[in-house]
Amino acid sequence: MNFIDGGVCAPKGFQAAGIHVGVKTNRLEKKDLAIILSDVQCSAAAVYTKNVVKAAPLYITKENLANGRARAVLANSGNANACAPNGEEASRRSCLAAAAALGIDASDIIVASTGVIGQEFPVEVVENGMAELVSKLAYDNSKDAAAAIMTTDLTMKELAIEFELDGKTISIGGITKGSGMIHPNMGTMLAFLTTDCAISSDMISKALIDATKVSFNRISVDGDTSTNDMMSLMANGMAGNDEITAVGAHYDTFTQALNMLCVELAKMIASDGEGATHLITCFVHGAVSESEAETMSMSVISSSLTKAAIFGADANWGRILCAMGYSGVEFDPDKVDVAFESSVGRILVCEKGRGLAFDEDFAKKILTERDVIIDIDMNSGDAHCTCWGCDLTYDYVKINGDYRS
Amino acid sequence: MNFIDGGVCAPKGFQAAGIHVGVKTNRLEKKDLAIILSDVQCSAAAVYTKNVVKAAPLYITKENLANGRARAVLANSGNANACAPNGEEASRRSCLAAAAALGIDASDIIVASTGVIGQEFPVEVVENGMAELVSKLAYDNSKDAAAAIMTTDLTMKELAIEFELDGKTISIGGITKGSGMIHPNMGTMLAFLTTDCAISSDMISKALIDATKVSFNRISVDGDTSTNDMMSLMANGMAGNDEITAVGAHYDTFTQALNMLCVELAKMIASDGEGATHLITCFVHGAVSESEAETMSMSVISSSLTKAAIFGADANWGRILCAMGYSGVEFDPDKVDVAFESSVGRILVCEKGRGLAFDEDFAKKILTERDVIIDIDMNSGDAHCTCWGCDLTYDYVKINGDYRS
Repeated sequence: MNFIDGGVCAPKGFQAAGIHVGVKTNRLEKKDLAIILSDVQCSAAAVYTKNVVKAAPLYITKENLANGRARAVLANSGNANACAPNGEEASRRSCLAAAAALGIDASDIIVASTGVIGQEFPVEVVENGMAELVSKLAYDNSKDAAAAIMTTDLTMKELAIEFELDGKTISIGGITKGSGMIHPNMGTMLAFLTTDCAISSDMISKALIDATKVSFNRISVDGDTSTNDMMSLMANGMAGNDEITAVGAHYDTFTQALNMLCVELAKMIASDGEGATHLITCFVHGAVSESEAETMSMSVISSSLTKAAIFGADANWGRILCAMGYSGVEFDPDKVDVAFESSVGRILVCEKGRGLAFDEDFAKKILTERDVIIDIDMNSGDAHCTCWGCDLTYDYVKINGDYRS
Repeated sequence: MNFIDGGVCAPKGFQAAGIHVGVKTNRLEKKDLAIILSDVQCSAAAVYTKNVVKAAPLYITKENLANGRARAVLANSGNANACAPNGEEASRRSCLAAAAALGIDASDIIVASTGVIGQEFPVEVVENGMAELVSKLAYDNSKDAAAAIMTTDLTMKELAIEFELDGKTISIGGITKGSGMIHPNMGTMLAFLTTDCAISSDMISKALIDATKVSFNRISVDGDTSTNDMMSLMANGMAGNDEITAVGAHYDTFTQALNMLCVELAKMIASDGEGATHLITCFVHGAVSESEAETMSMSVISSSLTKAAIFGADANWGRILCAMGYSGVEFDPDKVDVAFESSVGRILVCEKGRGLAFDEDFAKKILTERDVIIDIDMNSGDAHCTCWGCDLTYDYVKINGDYRS
């Protein structure tokens, strides 16, 4: 089982493209419309935001995936199509345009949007650009699709994983994007996965829910759960394995690869959070249960005060204990150890809930690295959980002080 | 019922003082030790943070208030005495020093701390400064006490309210402080109230819990619930009214005044949140229940994205709907109206869940005022709730990137 290049085009039989059509009116050079197409019909499923306010494309996608089948993904950046005056109609028309250009059924399209909430969706712009978009489809073009779903992202996010099943080589590929309004709940801003594995839509659905729980639901950039979170997976079966239709050894291998891929994609989002200068990994271990460890770890990586301290490379561990304390988990503070760690070393700053005298200069050196680990030992059990976040910076404020212009 | 000057010294028989003793080692000119003394024994009660990690003085105060009696408050800023190696001992020794200097019992002291978490508490510094502190006690010195509990606060926070009960003039006074780690849960960073009303400690306790719910529990600066939140009220009975010992008309009058005072003190904290340039008032009305209105309002004023948008005077109302959507309340987004309002005017930006075309320049003008109102009509019922917060600014990040130095 190893990571490979190629993103959503790594699995057999998937093409992708991404171009600028004009949804991003203020950013003329930026790609804003992406498409992914499978050579053959796929089993497919998706998970969606739990925000009560949902963007229109999520409703259309849910409708289209009711039969567990899909051929293509159509996604734009620049306009979220959430609370838009013409929301559902715009999503339907976008699907119809793509279907006509591809010669497939509109109900076989997974449609998604990301960008500003509440503005009229420029559906004509999407319709007018469709022919060009489809003309650019290619079997090695995942990067263009990954670029076309970026909003405030600074880095393109794509990855794939390869593994063996029953003598067949199978891969799962994905593209995703952040980078603000990230505190996913059953999905993330947007993630589109492809695989050549033969697997039923029921099994995909179950696998996606489980994968989300241990990856995208364990990151936060700013505590804001988006209206547009969605992750989908299309499986075209072209690897030639016997179709996975039930849990068992094959399903377990598949989900192991899927989870590894989703965790890496989720970490890419956290690391490229709006304005971020640090990826923060919070590892809580020695806990009574995984769920308690997760709650405390999420609370730490979501704490504005902790995030600002890491920005300043300030070993202010009191804020970490404070965030654990208000997480809702009952625990004995007098058992907790806290250490900071990065590629330059490790330093214990709190033992059994009490501050230690420590080398402030060395702590600052550790925290100045881009990837910083907060290591928390609860000394109370065997369970553990890791969550990922980023620091809170001037640039986060700057980006979000005037996001719409 | 009207607001008056004098803070904690407005009620009869209360003296206060505040000086610099040296707990704030890096800020030599800043006051850091406060005291409030009643001429006579008081009924008293307090509410405390629900953070699992609690500062040592909270345990000592709880112990001291077990009999419902107190004479004095002793509070320092600069060191939170939370997770300190010498926590409880330091708080006890501080109480003993104050008791000796005042000639009262150590168990009649409400003790509190605020500042950095996890550092050794400099108890000798407090002991050495006690004689000077007590020598400064005066009946018109609330401001010095209010100043001595400030940390990153830019403004001193004190207020009092006066009302009539049974022909007697009664007042309640208070001092409080923010301004980071503010997302109170059953208390706030620190608030000390005094009254000359005669009222039993059981009734004070009930009144404090209720007042907290509609004031300090409805503000947020950064979503971080402190380890040190605490609010206390001492009632010395010197107004000469018949003691309030049960609920009824007199209790209602008292709580009405108490609630008004606490709401104003809470708003002072929100307005002076770390780095804040705006006080944000979020008024949710037309809701199914007050509790749902409160949950949604708190979610809006706690949203980093909404707070950053207000900092930028950007009428990005989509973030407001988004924050309501992930609050946990079920509602129909297609019924929601959103307007922005300030002293220069009002503008409706979303009607029935859909964006309106609006005058961006006028919206920016409205949002450039210091006090900004987000007015949300759920169009679903008669319940309403107001919560208060502040914007997220460069200075919040700056202050918290290096708080300890």
